[in-house]
Amino acid sequence: MSPTPDWVKQLKPSGPQGHELLAAERAGSHVSAEKLEELLHTKETIDVTNRMLKVLKSEKVFDKSHNLFQGRIDRFASALAREKRLRVLKMQHNWSEEEFRTAVNLVGEPGPYGLHDTMFLITLGEQGTPEQQEKWLKPAEKYEIIGCYAQTELGHGSNVRGLETQAIWNPEDKTFTLHSPHLTASKWWIGSLGRTANYAAVMAQLIIDGKSYGPTPFIIQIRDLKTHEPLENVHVGDIGPKFGYNTMDNGFLLFNKLKVPHISMLAKFSHVDPNTNKFQRRGSPSLIYGTLTWVRSNIVKQAGATLARGVTIATRYTAVRRQFQDRDAPAGGSETPVLNYTMVQIRLLPLLAATFALHFTGNSMMELYNENKKKMNQGNANKDPSKTERGAGPEEMNSGSDLLADLHASSCALKSLSSTIAAEGLEVCRRACGGHGYSNFSGIGTWYADYLPTCTWEGDNYMLSQQVARYLLKSARSVLNGQKPTNDTTTILAEFQSRNNIGCAFDIIGSDTDLVAAFAWRVSFLTFEASKHRDEQKKPWNDLLVDFYRLSKAHAQYMVVKSNLSALKQIEKEGRIDSETIEVLMKLFRLFALHTLEQEGSEFYTSGACSKHQIMLARTKTVMKLLQDIRPHAVNLADSWGFDDWLLDSSLGRSDGKVYEDMFYRASELNPLNNYTVDPNPHSNVLYKNVEKSKL
Amino acid sequence: MSPTPDWVKQLKPSGPQGHELLAAERAGSHVSAEKLEELLHTKETIDVTNRMLKVLKSEKVFDKSHNLFQGRIDRFASALAREKRLRVLKMQHNWSEEEFRTAVNLVGEPGPYGLHDTMFLITLGEQGTPEQQEKWLKPAEKYEIIGCYAQTELGHGSNVRGLETQAIWNPEDKTFTLHSPHLTASKWWIGSLGRTANYAAVMAQLIIDGKSYGPTPFIIQIRDLKTHEPLENVHVGDIGPKFGYNTMDNGFLLFNKLKVPHISMLAKFSHVDPNTNKFQRRGSPSLIYGTLTWVRSNIVKQAGATLARGVTIATRYTAVRRQFQDRDAPAGGSETPVLNYTMVQIRLLPLLAATFALHFTGNSMMELYNENKKKMNQGNANKDPSKTERGAGPEEMNSGSDLLADLHASSCALKSLSSTIAAEGLEVCRRACGGHGYSNFSGIGTWYADYLPTCTWEGDNYMLSQQVARYLLKSARSVLNGQKPTNDTTTILAEFQSRNNIGCAFDIIGSDTDLVAAFAWRVSFLTFEASKHRDEQKKPWNDLLVDFYRLSKAHAQYMVVKSNLSALKQIEKEGRIDSETIEVLMKLFRLFALHTLEQEGSEFYTSGACSKHQIMLARTKTVMKLLQDIRPHAVNLADSWGFDDWLLDSSLGRSDGKVYEDMFYRASELNPLNNYTVDPNPHSNVLYKNVEKSKL
Repeated sequence: MSPTPDWVKQLKPSGPQGHELLAAERAGSHVSAEKLEELLHTKETIDVTNRMLKVLKSEKVFDKSHNLFQGRIDRFASALAREKRLRVLKMQHNWSEEEFRTAVNLVGEPGPYGLHDTMFLITLGEQGTPEQQEKWLKPAEKYEIIGCYAQTELGHGSNVRGLETQAIWNPEDKTFTLHSPHLTASKWWIGSLGRTANYAAVMAQLIIDGKSYGPTPFIIQIRDLKTHEPLENVHVGDIGPKFGYNTMDNGFLLFNKLKVPHISMLAKFSHVDPNTNKFQRRGSPSLIYGTLTWVRSNIVKQAGATLARGVTIATRYTAVRRQFQDRDAPAGGSETPVLNYTMVQIRLLPLLAATFALHFTGNSMMELYNENKKKMNQGNANKDPSKTERGAGPEEMNSGSDLLADLHASSCALKSLSSTIAAEGLEVCRRACGGHGYSNFSGIGTWYADYLPTCTWEGDNYMLSQQVARYLLKSARSVLNGQKPTNDTTTILAEFQSRNNIGCAFDIIGSDTDLVAAFAWRVSFLTFEASKHRDEQKKPWNDLLVDFYRLSKAHAQYMVVKSNLSALKQIEKEGRIDSETIEVLMKLFRLFALHTLEQEGSEFYTSGACSKHQIMLARTKTVMKLLQDIRPHAVNLADSWGFDDWLLDSSLGRSDGKVYEDMFYRASELNPLNNYTVDPNPHSNVLYKNVEKSKL
Repeated sequence: MSPTPDWVKQLKPSGPQGHELLAAERAGSHVSAEKLEELLHTKETIDVTNRMLKVLKSEKVFDKSHNLFQGRIDRFASALAREKRLRVLKMQHNWSEEEFRTAVNLVGEPGPYGLHDTMFLITLGEQGTPEQQEKWLKPAEKYEIIGCYAQTELGHGSNVRGLETQAIWNPEDKTFTLHSPHLTASKWWIGSLGRTANYAAVMAQLIIDGKSYGPTPFIIQIRDLKTHEPLENVHVGDIGPKFGYNTMDNGFLLFNKLKVPHISMLAKFSHVDPNTNKFQRRGSPSLIYGTLTWVRSNIVKQAGATLARGVTIATRYTAVRRQFQDRDAPAGGSETPVLNYTMVQIRLLPLLAATFALHFTGNSMMELYNENKKKMNQGNANKDPSKTERGAGPEEMNSGSDLLADLHASSCALKSLSSTIAAEGLEVCRRACGGHGYSNFSGIGTWYADYLPTCTWEGDNYMLSQQVARYLLKSARSVLNGQKPTNDTTTILAEFQSRNNIGCAFDIIGSDTDLVAAFAWRVSFLTFEASKHRDEQKKPWNDLLVDFYRLSKAHAQYMVVKSNLSALKQIEKEGRIDSETIEVLMKLFRLFALHTLEQEGSEFYTSGACSKHQIMLARTKTVMKLLQDIRPHAVNLADSWGFDDWLLDSSLGRSDGKVYEDMFYRASELNPLNNYTVDPNPHSNVLYKNVEKSKL
């Protein structure tokens, strides 16, 4: 590449410099980013992050500067090298789980060992007998074997019961035969399987004497431990490039009548008795359900932080980027930071508000989860409410497990809403950065592409809404039958029911509790509407899916505003942050709630939750005023998320505002395409003058 | 890569095969895809497409099978090779412009010669003197020189007046000095500049005797014609990887006091007299305005076809993909094609409807453009309504150019709406494909990523809405001043004004013309609201940007439904297609209109355009019924877009339904990552066992 000439190196951006603009933003707000960061993350967590950052920054293998320029083969190799080094460091330094997770998150890319550390170990830990754990869990924990979790198939996603892979019990020699009877039976999308794993936890239909006993987990060796070549009668490989997630080797896997020993079937909750050749259940798999709820609750909390990365980048950049003068300003002045334009604010600041709202909601879900776990350990709950992803679920549950069912439904609804908000919000952030948002140096696009699968896995966001609706329908029935409210859901439904004839009068603009109550009212209204359609009018389930999706969304939105307000009241009561900052946080709460309300205006109006006049006012006055009030604090609020530049890896989101310098540096000094000299003559077969054609 | 074993090659997907399912879909509808395709595209265009396809398919250089696996360096080389071959073929076969464009579209990737063939040639053609055209246009047409169009800068996008690159007139030796005074002055995002072009049309601030005369085009040689190395005092290169568009070498460009001769300034409309050293204007640049309007109108038409690619893929795939049984169906049956679920239909079918709506709207914009051009040639219009992207624009125009101003505003509003619908719709299509939508073999993700810049270029979709609002405000003033309506916009405003006291009563469900009228009523209501805020209450412009965006969107939506209905009525009147098909097309019109209306429900209700009851009915009954009616024709309607499999390059969208076979083939046979054998031991420094480390 022709080196950057000296005359270029001497150039600076014109006008006020980025670091001056951001310094002015930071000085112009009384919100202390540092204190707010501590409130969000706790001092201990911040310390861990800083310690891990120091380690990672000091090792060349974690250097991110070439990530964006590498093709898949090299990029995957870099990711693999980092994953290896992380495990070695973990063992060397005896990192805690929190330290290790923090380091993984700071590296910030899906890695080839990802499913080993999560699903493979968890499956063995939760579903393996002591003997099986001795055999596989111990070496797996020492990375002597690397595993993955093979459930979905080429033709089968959410519907676990439809899996085709077979595990046929052979009574004569006490083995199982693993077999893929069709192409659609190929395991597909399995993380860490494509190139890395030598073992797999395989979900297969257990068949004994011609009868199927449903999907059952098996631990199967798939590659030779020395050569790493696939074993005989196993066909395995990487499924190819994806929209994102290309540092992960999602794989496929087919079996051709592969015989495996009796011990291969994970036998904590069910086993095949080798003497009688009979299938036997033992113990309760409710912990598995707990895991799913935990995973979803975690997605809710992560959604806030995920979105916050994009919001941080876009907020800083729009404070630095200036374009046009305000039309009403006197001519000849300098250009305005684009964050001053209301059209930018209305896109960005509600998302800033959403990051906090989701963070507090995620926290409250985690608390509920822990509370529930405690009760479960006391033997209060012992049923599995989500037998499949479709979930015959809560509907059939007994009233003793009300908290469990409520938590399950909440985690479904919130997982769906929060991952949708985060994914779509990231794209809004990218576009708010204008043209430069399209450059990968923005740091948003690749992050967005890697995050997208979250909308599909752990329950597809559309599918999950059916589980939520089912739970709400059941709750409505219980209220209609005159049963006493046992949790928040039945409480708001009963409240609605009791006031249904006199209506409500919520002052959504003047009162925060009324604002939350309006969200509760709308959920209740939609729930009883759905109940009428399904239970009274007996409408087909399929005809109601669109209504169910709306209902689930309404339920989740209610929980977010409720959790957000109650978290802030608690913080205020405990004096955990200064009153000026809490005031700004309350404004963010109102912005999120009113902006959401306005987007869903017709449902709020139809349900009678608020008057048309107040919805109009919210839109034209209150929301605009909130944007104006929050604007001066935007940069400090974003800063409070505490993302290190090393993590963000974004030219536009640099904390020092050196946006243009960094964009230019990367293009002019790092971009390898500039090493190739093109021959532009169409009649010439030469493409790159300085590279032999055979090398291309 | 371990070869696919024979036992795998023998496997077929389970259950009914994809080709059987699609055959049943096609047989189950009376819509003739073939006839509808002819209606949409004309027989002549289809013939051209087929001829070009034949040429392209026969040449190895156009083979797409490795596109998705290549890193940027190789991918760019492939694109360059194809671009070269296309130009050679064009010259050899003497292709018409239509033939050439068709071939380029079929190759389906942004190419390194792209800006040469469009903006460079157009700029020379429109703004060069005969002498300049002799010097540059002729060799450019023969690809002896390759050019680009260098306008935007690192610190300057939409605001053309803010460009920093200078062209200083030197009276002593009759030359210009091209100079980049700051880093932000670096040209940026310039297509074809990064590696390919040796010339650039550069927009620079013309400075004579210390006075600036605004942005002016210059033709500058930037690279040596032999070595292709940058000339002295020129720093040029590729700006790096982007979210999409990576087959294009968007570039940067800086000048260090580069002296160029007098002829370098394109002098058709203005020049510097070398004798007097004075700046002189000559002629009218209105044609340039015409070009912008043409470009935007073209984007509208393209938006329909762009979205249709995604819709075709998702429709075919969701007809093949089966998951779960309908909940109300008797147990034990086979799984249901996901296209039967209303939650899939509500996402997909309104987009199918949108493809047709946008297509007809684009056609009608093109007709208006041609009509206007004819009038312009008769000397009716001679002002430039968009002096900058910010556009001081139509507001100042005289009433003689009403059609021009209306066309300009319409093209802005429709460009903004249609590219937003297409971009966001493609992502909806991708997600409707479930997990497999995330694979690049879906053919949607990469297409979406390449399309995204359309939302930003040729006028940012948010910025453009200000030009639309400005025009509507001016139209409102003219109506309020009692002037006679001169075009459709002032006609609907006057109609609204005359009925404002008695209101309206549109039957949106029972009458198609009423449905369109409701859209007109809402635009008029919002226009007079905006007029009140700006002209009466003197609200700051910045406070109204959000309202303006809504107004522009409303205006565009009105035009789409209006154009759609009137096109269908014309087709029916002229008997250009059978009555069963026209009936389905009418249903698609209603679905698009009512679904849009329902999404924007609160605006329709607030404006009094329709009753709450009808909006509720539209949502719960009419739209659901339309989905049900259109469902059986979905595959044939998608087929009617006539995309060849070679163009779609999608496993999921294959016209023969062999979805799983193709996904598997690409993963197992084409994916180069499967040639690399990983060493999974974290303590080993070896990454790929079969590759030397030095090669990574």
